[in-house]
Amino acid sequence: MTLGNTQRTTVKKAAHKVVKDKEALYSIIDESKLAHVAFSDERGPTVIPMLAWREGDNIYIHGARNSKMLKHLKKGADCCVTFTILDAWVLARSAFHHSAHYRCAMAFGRFEVVEDNTKKAAAFDEFLEQIAPGRSKEARPGNEKELTATELLVMPLAEASVKIGRHGVNDDLADMDLPVWAGILPFRTVAGPLEPTADNSVDETPDYSAAYSGRWCE
Amino acid sequence: MTLGNTQRTTVKKAAHKVVKDKEALYSIIDESKLAHVAFSDERGPTVIPMLAWREGDNIYIHGARNSKMLKHLKKGADCCVTFTILDAWVLARSAFHHSAHYRCAMAFGRFEVVEDNTKKAAAFDEFLEQIAPGRSKEARPGNEKELTATELLVMPLAEASVKIGRHGVNDDLADMDLPVWAGILPFRTVAGPLEPTADNSVDETPDYSAAYSGRWCE
Repeated sequence: MTLGNTQRTTVKKAAHKVVKDKEALYSIIDESKLAHVAFSDERGPTVIPMLAWREGDNIYIHGARNSKMLKHLKKGADCCVTFTILDAWVLARSAFHHSAHYRCAMAFGRFEVVEDNTKKAAAFDEFLEQIAPGRSKEARPGNEKELTATELLVMPLAEASVKIGRHGVNDDLADMDLPVWAGILPFRTVAGPLEPTADNSVDETPDYSAAYSGRWCE
Repeated sequence: MTLGNTQRTTVKKAAHKVVKDKEALYSIIDESKLAHVAFSDERGPTVIPMLAWREGDNIYIHGARNSKMLKHLKKGADCCVTFTILDAWVLARSAFHHSAHYRCAMAFGRFEVVEDNTKKAAAFDEFLEQIAPGRSKEARPGNEKELTATELLVMPLAEASVKIGRHGVNDDLADMDLPVWAGILPFRTVAGPLEPTADNSVDETPDYSAAYSGRWCE
């Protein structure tokens, strides 16, 4: 994998925010799991949100076999996959220096189809384990019909870049004595608590908090 | 504005999730403020996260005048702007019926430059008011040099679609008696509390909670 070494992944703006660290790339993808997938077809550029998960240096998306977007991506269309987490507003003393803290991972490449149902089942189990640890052993596994009806696409993280803004307040020297509160307004996405559906018949609530370390909400 | 009436905005998959309601479109954009902007240039399709805000039926993005992406969009490039909020995992009794709750707004169109500094200042004030009500009166306003250095682009919400998944658990009848907990694992993005920067000299913490109704965290 190259992180930020190709023409498409060399960040020119705010280059100090570039991170060339695989672990940072992994953690953004793993925490977000919300990919924005861009491609171009006869209608021009389009960006569609997809659930995505990572195993090693591969990212997976899935959907129904008759999805128009997946049919297009299966043809080997160039695409760009971006994961972004907005962490805070930065409230500076001047309007101009307001900004945001964020973490962003981008990957360029092409998706390929995973056809083998055994491999597909294993990838879906992995996804389920990442969102609800233990659940792949609890839920009724996909059968051949269900696995065949579900398209699984994989893209290697071969060409990626990571940009992290965590710069804090950077005001002009001339503004430092202004009587304006300065600091950050943080965001945090918390998960839980689990909400049973009306006809749930299992009394004991499972514990999936291990997947949401530090952001689980009882 | 047309919501879902053009070729590009007619949703074919899961059409029951389509919402043709302007207020839904507005609320997703206003709550998210994180746009994923897709365009195509000589390097192929690219999607970049941008802060975005809405006034009426226009969405705004901004950045430094020398931004490569903004230079490209200024030329009238076709683009797609998507806002997505992931609300929950849906944990069904079968692996196959697992899904997500989400709200997604997509808009197609072209950005135009706002050149007039007075109009730009008003748009930036609006953005500031949306993220921190009252702050546009507190922070030192942008001067001519700062306003000129900042590019402001506007795109009318002329061709948009909204898709909301809030379907809950939908298991197969044959799976209903399985001893598997079923329900949702919700996500919630909370804002606050404000964190002063090390050299903040204003004792009184401002109150911007009004912009984060129901998701402010003291």
